[in-house]
Amino acid sequence: MSLLVIGTVAFDAIETPFGKTDKILGGAATYISLAASYFTKNINLVSVVGDDFPTSNIKMLEKHSVNTDGLQVLKGQKTFFWAGKYHNDMNTRDTITTELNVLENFNPIVPEAYQDCEFLMLGNLVPKVQQQVIAQLKKRPKLIVLDTMNFWMDIAMPDLRETLALVDVLTINDEEARQLSGEYSLVKAAKKILKMGPQFLIIKKGEHGALLFNEDQVFFAPALPLEEVFDPTGAGDSFAGGFIGFLAQSQDISFDNMKRAIIFGSAMASFCVEKFGTEKLIGLTQDQVEKRVQEFVNLVQFDIALV
Amino acid sequence: MSLLVIGTVAFDAIETPFGKTDKILGGAATYISLAASYFTKNINLVSVVGDDFPTSNIKMLEKHSVNTDGLQVLKGQKTFFWAGKYHNDMNTRDTITTELNVLENFNPIVPEAYQDCEFLMLGNLVPKVQQQVIAQLKKRPKLIVLDTMNFWMDIAMPDLRETLALVDVLTINDEEARQLSGEYSLVKAAKKILKMGPQFLIIKKGEHGALLFNEDQVFFAPALPLEEVFDPTGAGDSFAGGFIGFLAQSQDISFDNMKRAIIFGSAMASFCVEKFGTEKLIGLTQDQVEKRVQEFVNLVQFDIALV
Repeated sequence: MSLLVIGTVAFDAIETPFGKTDKILGGAATYISLAASYFTKNINLVSVVGDDFPTSNIKMLEKHSVNTDGLQVLKGQKTFFWAGKYHNDMNTRDTITTELNVLENFNPIVPEAYQDCEFLMLGNLVPKVQQQVIAQLKKRPKLIVLDTMNFWMDIAMPDLRETLALVDVLTINDEEARQLSGEYSLVKAAKKILKMGPQFLIIKKGEHGALLFNEDQVFFAPALPLEEVFDPTGAGDSFAGGFIGFLAQSQDISFDNMKRAIIFGSAMASFCVEKFGTEKLIGLTQDQVEKRVQEFVNLVQFDIALV
Repeated sequence: MSLLVIGTVAFDAIETPFGKTDKILGGAATYISLAASYFTKNINLVSVVGDDFPTSNIKMLEKHSVNTDGLQVLKGQKTFFWAGKYHNDMNTRDTITTELNVLENFNPIVPEAYQDCEFLMLGNLVPKVQQQVIAQLKKRPKLIVLDTMNFWMDIAMPDLRETLALVDVLTINDEEARQLSGEYSLVKAAKKILKMGPQFLIIKKGEHGALLFNEDQVFFAPALPLEEVFDPTGAGDSFAGGFIGFLAQSQDISFDNMKRAIIFGSAMASFCVEKFGTEKLIGLTQDQVEKRVQEFVNLVQFDIALV
């Protein structure tokens, strides 16, 4: 039941209406791995950093059951860096800086010991790089989940469509679903996207929750109404990490179990946004996670007895 | 278990990306009454129209269990008319025309037989007029639900605050909740608004569902993902009508029953937007309503067994 996670490990500098940070730990694979670590203990990370990346971060990841043998550390090079500023609504942001650094020529190498993974999470990256990872696996994983973004739809759509044809679950946000399908209605968008390869589509709507579609079913998971959203960075990745971590642990990829997995993913996203960066995802207790999930259960629970 | 409904009965001319209508039946009280009629059979309407209002509309309302003795028909005057055009996203619209006509000097008269109502729905109107209705009742109803809008917050906030102090449930949309409270976070907004009078607050988020708050509980009801939203006009009123109609029938105003009522209200709103104006709300069968509610149950149902 091993989980292989591919994606960025990065530095972020974040400004929100609540304050700003210097370079702190970030990156899709970081959030995914941390969130998944509350559900499964066999997480293998493939990513790349520069030699400016502190070993304390690597140790922290390993404490969270993340095997970092697949984390390339490139000498004399610098870690991927992103700086951004959120607007007051916390839903929109401006990118201030993007320094690709080690990502510019990222050539993912999946260590031998990871090549028989059962669950594969392809965090947001160049679609061609995501494909290279799949190509290195000895056998087809039980489940491949793909995250991507509008940027690749803009500049690498043919590659993205190739990658899409190889995966089981796609997670994108509502605007991306509209862009990818050319349909405004999310129901129509889902129908089109499910013909592109994935059997399952998760549309993330941020503070408005998430939708899970397969060919003939739909499930809606709410977001938890929070007093403060402190920093939305990493929420989507934390969601994906909780989702695939729960599935990897339970080994059940039915639609019903994916519904549960989405609730656990949503719970991890709700933690993520409560502090800057990865801060809140580090060192949570099982009790905190269960209490948070219970809040989701309470939030949507009702009983209607229809004849 | 009588339900008293106050609000506009109107003509609307609507343009959406799917087409446009001439003057068709509209108005908050119309949508509320029609939606409520699928749950309770004792609906008393107080409103005003001009003598241009077709008796066929009045007959249609009466067929839907709506008592129209309280519908004033003013001779030589014209019915309230609104024309609007929806943008492509269907969430924003421009008002093309507003002709107040009979509404300009609307003086609501609650017939003697309506004055002991147990459930009162104050549809969107001048806050002072809403107060006049409450003042005419022989006894305090079991439940008063108030709908209002940003327009009154802009031009009549002191009156609105007076009305708010008299009611049990307030229904407004997310932007209105932010405007009324001065808080961006809906959780914080709810806390402030619940100190203004109502014990319950419903925040309508359109295609993103609705939230119900009381002092220490919160419930989230999704909107049904639809292939097409044909015309959003009246969705909020249909929601309110289904909500209070269900409560009036069941006579149970607990938080748990309000959760059910919100699902029934959401179901009525989901019907409303599928056709122009009131068209879809006329002549639905109980079977259609139950099937729709079952879709909501299926949409959010999951089971997580926490220890």
